[in-house]
Amino acid sequence: MNDKDFQELTAGIATIVPADGLIQKLAQAEKEKRPLKIKLGFDPTAPDLHLGHAVVLRKLRQFQNAGHEINIIIGDFTARIGDPTGRNSARPPLTPEQVKINAQTYVNQLAKIMDVSKIKLHFNSSWLEKMNFMEVIKLLAKATLAQMLQRNDFRERYEKNIPVALHELVYPIMQGYDSVVLDADIELGGTDQLFNCMVGKDLQTSFGKNTTQIVISMPILRGTDGVEKMSKSKGNYIALTDTPNEMYGKTMSIPDELLTEWIELATDFPIEEKKHLIESIGTINPMEIKKKVAANIVKIYHGIEEAKNAEIFFYNQVQAKDLNAKEYKNINLSEFNISLNEDIISLLQLLIPEQSKSALRRLIEGGGVALNGQKITNIDLKILELPDNAKLKVGKRGFFNIIKK
Amino acid sequence: MNDKDFQELTAGIATIVPADGLIQKLAQAEKEKRPLKIKLGFDPTAPDLHLGHAVVLRKLRQFQNAGHEINIIIGDFTARIGDPTGRNSARPPLTPEQVKINAQTYVNQLAKIMDVSKIKLHFNSSWLEKMNFMEVIKLLAKATLAQMLQRNDFRERYEKNIPVALHELVYPIMQGYDSVVLDADIELGGTDQLFNCMVGKDLQTSFGKNTTQIVISMPILRGTDGVEKMSKSKGNYIALTDTPNEMYGKTMSIPDELLTEWIELATDFPIEEKKHLIESIGTINPMEIKKKVAANIVKIYHGIEEAKNAEIFFYNQVQAKDLNAKEYKNINLSEFNISLNEDIISLLQLLIPEQSKSALRRLIEGGGVALNGQKITNIDLKILELPDNAKLKVGKRGFFNIIKK
Repeated sequence: MNDKDFQELTAGIATIVPADGLIQKLAQAEKEKRPLKIKLGFDPTAPDLHLGHAVVLRKLRQFQNAGHEINIIIGDFTARIGDPTGRNSARPPLTPEQVKINAQTYVNQLAKIMDVSKIKLHFNSSWLEKMNFMEVIKLLAKATLAQMLQRNDFRERYEKNIPVALHELVYPIMQGYDSVVLDADIELGGTDQLFNCMVGKDLQTSFGKNTTQIVISMPILRGTDGVEKMSKSKGNYIALTDTPNEMYGKTMSIPDELLTEWIELATDFPIEEKKHLIESIGTINPMEIKKKVAANIVKIYHGIEEAKNAEIFFYNQVQAKDLNAKEYKNINLSEFNISLNEDIISLLQLLIPEQSKSALRRLIEGGGVALNGQKITNIDLKILELPDNAKLKVGKRGFFNIIKK
Repeated sequence: MNDKDFQELTAGIATIVPADGLIQKLAQAEKEKRPLKIKLGFDPTAPDLHLGHAVVLRKLRQFQNAGHEINIIIGDFTARIGDPTGRNSARPPLTPEQVKINAQTYVNQLAKIMDVSKIKLHFNSSWLEKMNFMEVIKLLAKATLAQMLQRNDFRERYEKNIPVALHELVYPIMQGYDSVVLDADIELGGTDQLFNCMVGKDLQTSFGKNTTQIVISMPILRGTDGVEKMSKSKGNYIALTDTPNEMYGKTMSIPDELLTEWIELATDFPIEEKKHLIESIGTINPMEIKKKVAANIVKIYHGIEEAKNAEIFFYNQVQAKDLNAKEYKNINLSEFNISLNEDIISLLQLLIPEQSKSALRRLIEGGGVALNGQKITNIDLKILELPDNAKLKVGKRGFFNIIKK
């Protein structure tokens, strides 16, 4: 693997434990002439995948492209239990049929990201179900209470006197045991899964495995609200099964603050282009960047043609609609004594003569002037560069339709 | 059950949880015309029973006498696991054959205390062994981490960073589940088992039982060293299988401070007599009280004849040997001008004229004067009351054989 490929493979990763683990594992794979076993756990109670899941899944895809073996563990064993304390009625146990349906739905969605014909699918009930009490005791003996209380939510709940039922301490052990059974080389997950993934690594050690898995954590993608982790329950998500127009429109709605994060995690631009786009934030109109991000995201899941169509749809239906909602005064420039080589400030002074040039400049800089629904950020824009029938909104009350000839 | 019987049944108990539980349970048994199910758990790794175990077992015997059903749970399931962490090599797993032999040894010893033909013996492997992982999860969901950390040793170890392996948290749950399976009315144990017994009560509640067990805790008996809990590993124990002479001799060796505790917990004197004996401590020679305690203990396990023989043996072999080891100066009182109606102090001043009366009084009060090997505590003892050929030891160096005629 050359440097550039390695750089792409590690791009966007939050943590690798241990830090040099991936280099070692890749060297091991090369030496032993075998693919690495990459593990990802999946909870079959939530089969609607979205861009948040895709952050991890697209990293898996990169490993698949590099020739490694993707192993998906369907955590059907716990899903069949539901909430045994009975406190959470929203978590009823799943029947084996439901688990099967959910798993199939999951694979169908995975197909949007990776070659599902090459992945290995495992149901952890196939080994956990058979274990008897004595085997469970021996498994639990491999972990300590202190290890489990390293997990923030356990410790916090214990310290705040919020009940932690004993079986909850067992869940990370089950997930970790999956790594033992699988002999995983790498486990991927979100940073919120780091603890559970580390349990897998520790259990492999306790079970005397020669080599143990490394853990790769991907950052958490915030949802379209710009605040919370993307999730179905928060309604701030873009599903992998969303239509191109939904994907494009939802992406255009994200707050500007999310741009860097989304460019890094949700697009598949090459590293250099990501860097370039991120650097352009603050210098060009954020909506221009969002359009590129939105088009890229649609391209990933629906192809380049659909991305173009979504862009047109968005302009026609959303942006244009917004413009048509106002009454624009037609300004035919041929009727005025102004050169098309002059800049936008000169045009504004023509339209609103009562304002000084510097006041108009400040208005532009403050985002108060929009061209076809997008804020103008380039103060040096020439009249020449305006599209024909450009709709110009100046401040709160000035609506002009600029006709150049 | 009349008041006196109830008083005997509750005598010596450290705690009943809840406080009025026993009254309620006895009323329930009477109303439902059924015996109460009394549970006692037993760890088959330690089959040598001693007087410490007997504190609980003799209380069980009282319940058996009152017509209730004694259920002994042999904790063979955990004994078969050994120490799964491998840290404690002194705790290897027991084979089913060893468990069987240990259980038989246990029953043989129980026969010294209760009617073993009437007890019910259960091996908890018969229900725990069959449980699968899912059933274990559902069982563990019934208890919380906070509950388990109420147990002092878990909390202390956690706080002191001494590892608590997760399976250790499961052991109390298993013991508690035995109460659920058995539908126990009462669980007995030492005060050090109170936590585990309460888990059984709580689990019965979680499993929706109509009535739950009450817990009766017996105090812990300190061993012959007067310091530590009686246990085989400390070497401070009197085994139920000890010979009458061993039992008698070991009891005579206990420090005076243990007398009240041993009268309360190790003898079967009626309540009134125990009270009387305890009140006599400090007024008569402690060795006289010990003799009564020792004879009573031998009587319980070997019968009244053996108790008498043990007393004679002790006098001949131990006490007499001790006396014969010194050279005693013969003092024929007929050669002196002293009345037999005078008290012991006058006699001492005759023997050691260089000491004042008050110094000799202090010597007696400080336990420095012994008659036939026993400290004299009665300062008003008359010479008349001395046995013939009384061996008197005064301070460290005065040895006299008092011949009265």
